[in-house]
Amino acid sequence: MAINYPNGKKFIPSKTQPAAKKKKDFSFSNRGKTLEDELNETNDYYLQLGLAVIHKKPVPVQIVKVEYPSRSAAVIREAYFRTPSTTDYNGVWNGKYVDFEAKETENKTSFPLKNIHEHQIHHMSQVVKQNGMAFLILRFSSLQRYFIMRFESLEIFWNRMLAGGRKSITLEEIEEASIEIAPSAFPPIDYLPVLHKL
Amino acid sequence: MAINYPNGKKFIPSKTQPAAKKKKDFSFSNRGKTLEDELNETNDYYLQLGLAVIHKKPVPVQIVKVEYPSRSAAVIREAYFRTPSTTDYNGVWNGKYVDFEAKETENKTSFPLKNIHEHQIHHMSQVVKQNGMAFLILRFSSLQRYFIMRFESLEIFWNRMLAGGRKSITLEEIEEASIEIAPSAFPPIDYLPVLHKL
Repeated sequence: MAINYPNGKKFIPSKTQPAAKKKKDFSFSNRGKTLEDELNETNDYYLQLGLAVIHKKPVPVQIVKVEYPSRSAAVIREAYFRTPSTTDYNGVWNGKYVDFEAKETENKTSFPLKNIHEHQIHHMSQVVKQNGMAFLILRFSSLQRYFIMRFESLEIFWNRMLAGGRKSITLEEIEEASIEIAPSAFPPIDYLPVLHKL
Repeated sequence: MAINYPNGKKFIPSKTQPAAKKKKDFSFSNRGKTLEDELNETNDYYLQLGLAVIHKKPVPVQIVKVEYPSRSAAVIREAYFRTPSTTDYNGVWNGKYVDFEAKETENKTSFPLKNIHEHQIHHMSQVVKQNGMAFLILRFSSLQRYFIMRFESLEIFWNRMLAGGRKSITLEEIEEASIEIAPSAFPPIDYLPVLHKL
């Protein structure tokens, strides 16, 4: 089950969250895993091997009401999803600051830019100004293809849209402006080796 | 109102959260602001001036039940606080990865180490191994004194405790092993200039 944010962002609960009644997909293309699952496994792998320390940030919620049942943990009884002010993933790799957003689309020919929020573009722009690495990890779920696009390229397509141009990036453009990552069994999305090339 | 995590961590809602019935304190010592307020203001200031991009991570919650009232935003009806797996603050400053935990104590003579969780020590240790900067920002609220202690020093006191030694760091030890930050009106805790000296 996917929960929709007020801002249209899809919230997909992680495995540790009992609310997660994930849509099962047994096709080979994504083996039922969300992009978030794949990245969490990849980041865990990097952490265990001491290759990088990169975590997904928690989903921001605005807590309104909390109950304290006796002898049990506090229960949040009223809360709302907030719009995140940054990207979802960040951390450190070999002294470098790494920051990225991960998005998937079922679309087969282009990536719709409405999946990205303006404040995330703004955030990535600030990161780059501080000499951090900012990029987008993109999954075309139906095609089982993964791309990593540095922010500097993403920004070009974003600005084209702001100037009245198309509201998506075509697959051909993505192939040209990104580095493709071949998915593997373990780690699922081995993106660290690609960072050297960005 | 402070909400207690199952793990004993204090959760202090931010200003934007309606649940926040903050204990008001009109003494000069902290002007009613929590350490989190002061750091958020400081980080906002750094962000606006393009000096650093450092954010507090959202409080991690495990979402169990969500309702979708018609024509309004999704409401979380059951959720629980989760133990954070990292520190609260991270970001990038001048190409460097910056990661820290912020703690305050009302104690006047020492800082109790029970305020820090083992997984946070573990996380900071991993950050340092990746050549990131990891440190602790400490506020002695009653004394209106602020310290910044690099992880490498904190680890020594932590290991002393593990070896059966004292469960706190005395103020004298903190004065010796940290850099003191003088609070100011704006930004409240100007910690960036101190990082050069760490």
